[in-house]
Amino acid sequence: MDGVSDTATAEPRLKAARAGQERGPKQDRSRATHRRLLEAAVACLAEHGWAGSTVSVVAERAGVSRGAAQHHFPTREDLFTAAVEYVAEERSVALRALFPEGAEGAGGAEGAGGAEGAGNGGVTGRPAVVAALVDLYTGPLFRAALHLWVAASNEDQLRPRVTELEARVGRETHRIAVELLGADESVPGVRETVQGLLDMARGLGLANLLTDDAGRRDRVVAQWAVLLDEALG
Amino acid sequence: MDGVSDTATAEPRLKAARAGQERGPKQDRSRATHRRLLEAAVACLAEHGWAGSTVSVVAERAGVSRGAAQHHFPTREDLFTAAVEYVAEERSVALRALFPEGAEGAGGAEGAGGAEGAGNGGVTGRPAVVAALVDLYTGPLFRAALHLWVAASNEDQLRPRVTELEARVGRETHRIAVELLGADESVPGVRETVQGLLDMARGLGLANLLTDDAGRRDRVVAQWAVLLDEALG
Repeated sequence: MDGVSDTATAEPRLKAARAGQERGPKQDRSRATHRRLLEAAVACLAEHGWAGSTVSVVAERAGVSRGAAQHHFPTREDLFTAAVEYVAEERSVALRALFPEGAEGAGGAEGAGGAEGAGNGGVTGRPAVVAALVDLYTGPLFRAALHLWVAASNEDQLRPRVTELEARVGRETHRIAVELLGADESVPGVRETVQGLLDMARGLGLANLLTDDAGRRDRVVAQWAVLLDEALG
Repeated sequence: MDGVSDTATAEPRLKAARAGQERGPKQDRSRATHRRLLEAAVACLAEHGWAGSTVSVVAERAGVSRGAAQHHFPTREDLFTAAVEYVAEERSVALRALFPEGAEGAGGAEGAGGAEGAGNGGVTGRPAVVAALVDLYTGPLFRAALHLWVAASNEDQLRPRVTELEARVGRETHRIAVELLGADESVPGVRETVQGLLDMARGLGLANLLTDDAGRRDRVVAQWAVLLDEALG
């Protein structure tokens, strides 16, 4: 399975965004460690599931001592919910950067940098946005989030935190989708049309869990992009 | 969480279907035990996840000795894949029974017996079929299948069997959807339209994992039923 190296493309941008604060080399190192732990946690969840993802395993993967990891994230729940949220934010930033002018400008995304799977070979406008939205649900972030959700459904300690996280990430994804698709939510039915698209994307992500479903997915996405385009006017 | 008692409604029908064979009381008892184990296995998976679902736990829940359970299902993998398949078949039978004439006859489903959540208060035709298809993904069967899929993504022993099971159940669900919706797959795009609907249903099932998403889901389903009706002509 692929790692989470794709998130690295969003890094320089985020780093720049954070650079407003005055920082010393020590804080820089601490931030770098923090980020390494978060990325290792998502990769670990995606590959080994919740049962196989402990703070120790993540610390080792990130090349950090267990004590240092616990300094950053006191509990296992802290580490993994923070990790899924962090990577989701990175993906949101990358997605917005890919379509700086929304579906209108979706033809001219050269140089915007690579959100995973954005190679939609010549597809432009709304279909390109739909394809990029679906791509949010087929990489290691979705896989990690899925493991966290499923674990949370059986673990009382995890459930409230993941429920809250899911709601927050879901709202943000919906907001981005509406914006990039140029959807007018004041028109009756438009909100539900966009929500249904994101539900479909989530279902496509699940269908991709055990087998490589890319061929079928591309055909479904192409067809639903047409239906969506007609529905959104 | 709800149990799997809703599957019991399909039982008399299936029993009748099997009654072609000559049976003694001993075979009857064995079949009843077999079925009790399968239903207990699905309920157990849905409630406790894969990690909490062992043959012993299921045997106890079914009121059967561990030895008897192992006589029916030699391995844990045998038991749980058989269970998900059995309940999926029961649901398919119940769904077909609910719309004996497909979307055309979806107004006259009285007395067809209760597939879970089929109380779509007055909704008829294709929207009723869409709602019933989505309901396949929001009950304990979907929850159980989800736990099995996610476990299979990390367990080499389980993966090939669950992959094969998922493909089989997926094909059958697609076949039922095409039939009940009266969709003509010889028309370009129709196949992908129906697939996308089932992907959306799967995504809606996932969205229902941690919270009761019924309100939002009903609105999304109502809107996409309209879009789908237009798309299918």
